[in-house]
Amino acid sequence: MTTYVERVAAASTRNGSLLCVGLDAEHAKMPTHLQTLPPAEAMLAFNREIIDATCDLVAAYKPNLAFYEALGPAGMEAFRATVAHVPYGIPVIADAKRGDIDSTTRAYARAIFDVYGCDAITANPYLGRDALAPFLDRADRGTYILCRTSNPGASDIAELDVAGEPLYVRVAERAPTWTTHGNIGLVVGATAPAQLARVRAVAPGVPILLPGVGAQGGDLAASMEAGLDATGAGLLVVAARQVMYASSGRDFAQAARASARQLRDQIESARANVAPAR
Amino acid sequence: MTTYVERVAAASTRNGSLLCVGLDAEHAKMPTHLQTLPPAEAMLAFNREIIDATCDLVAAYKPNLAFYEALGPAGMEAFRATVAHVPYGIPVIADAKRGDIDSTTRAYARAIFDVYGCDAITANPYLGRDALAPFLDRADRGTYILCRTSNPGASDIAELDVAGEPLYVRVAERAPTWTTHGNIGLVVGATAPAQLARVRAVAPGVPILLPGVGAQGGDLAASMEAGLDATGAGLLVVAARQVMYASSGRDFAQAARASARQLRDQIESARANVAPAR
Repeated sequence: MTTYVERVAAASTRNGSLLCVGLDAEHAKMPTHLQTLPPAEAMLAFNREIIDATCDLVAAYKPNLAFYEALGPAGMEAFRATVAHVPYGIPVIADAKRGDIDSTTRAYARAIFDVYGCDAITANPYLGRDALAPFLDRADRGTYILCRTSNPGASDIAELDVAGEPLYVRVAERAPTWTTHGNIGLVVGATAPAQLARVRAVAPGVPILLPGVGAQGGDLAASMEAGLDATGAGLLVVAARQVMYASSGRDFAQAARASARQLRDQIESARANVAPAR
Repeated sequence: MTTYVERVAAASTRNGSLLCVGLDAEHAKMPTHLQTLPPAEAMLAFNREIIDATCDLVAAYKPNLAFYEALGPAGMEAFRATVAHVPYGIPVIADAKRGDIDSTTRAYARAIFDVYGCDAITANPYLGRDALAPFLDRADRGTYILCRTSNPGASDIAELDVAGEPLYVRVAERAPTWTTHGNIGLVVGATAPAQLARVRAVAPGVPILLPGVGAQGGDLAASMEAGLDATGAGLLVVAARQVMYASSGRDFAQAARASARQLRDQIESARANVAPAR
């Protein structure tokens, strides 16, 4: 059995990349020529081209379930076919942000890991450890727990003060103890580098999934500085709109490749600038 | 436009009931004769009979998305057909516990409210107000925000102390202010009547969805006492396994009806015992 962390590390080393490309295009934002197809077909055609054009540049892919769910059952079929299209050896993170009581989470684990074949899932910590156990018990799969998200409202709940530290820091301290399989990561938005640094300080060895660079305005260099672990890794930088919508023409896949390559290289040079100091 | 709260009140009055029946049977627990069907077909056949047998006894239905997702795209088709089978005038609450950044929550809102036609959704507060805005902005739909759940792990995060009150109390105070449409409710488990009473105290007029009676061991009378609002309503009592699995034979629908009727009547008499004191 290879673990999820090992599979990410292998893909990352092979492609020299910490980039994780989002796969969740909305119909109205797709290249014009694809918008003539039915939405779920368009999504799958779009995803296949994006994957083919970027799979030697990424460490992982991250489809967000919401955009597939919004297309009904046909959307879920497109989700299945999208995951199946990702080449062997590139992990797929289902951005699902699930979390429910345990018998229900067992059903979600079956859905995401078995029916759809994803390598990892994003999950919400609010219901506590036992609610996530069915994800965490899968020693060969990964679970990224929401910690400090990239949206403005992250301050409403996740920054409430819990005995001198914001809630998200308590999540960063506690969540990694919820398994003995070493298969927990944290989701921390790139829009808040100081908070990212705080998370890295309390969870030094925990993999971090970092959305928020690009369209959401996060600072890449500051995030790399704040978020890399002591080995200069332990971080996946998510890019979605920036890569997916690099062009709205028939050259969208080439443009996505160029954007992904540029981002990968920016990440690598930021990483090189940070790593020697550690 | 009727609001979600008005639709629940109308169904509740018509059927003299605060009962909300869960619709999320697992294949292996269904009546034996249905287990010979493909899982998604079995689920739909099962749900239709349960709905037909109980729709004059309930105030709402609550399918949990996890069990449909676990059956792949065919499961989502069964979900759509299940919601469509619920008679006009009985609200359907999608137990989805969703929550994501806003463009993504917009996709979930389209999925749950438009594609699948549900009246309300359950959602997770961890990401804050803006993450739920696309649900809350739908003035004709309801959103039940997780507050104090029925599982043991509820204490891991939701009971952390935030300036002298547990986090779930802060959620109960804040979440209802996240909309001006009056379309927010709270999810509070029946397994913790003292916590339920605390939530009712800080959110006196907010609708509460109460899972945890029955299989999870919650105390019905104590929960009614703790959770009813000043008008003797404002509460939906969820029963799932107790009704769905009342019999594993061909009489499962009749048995579900008997169980739902008994529960409805127990709720009504607990309500009668509480209400005069208010």
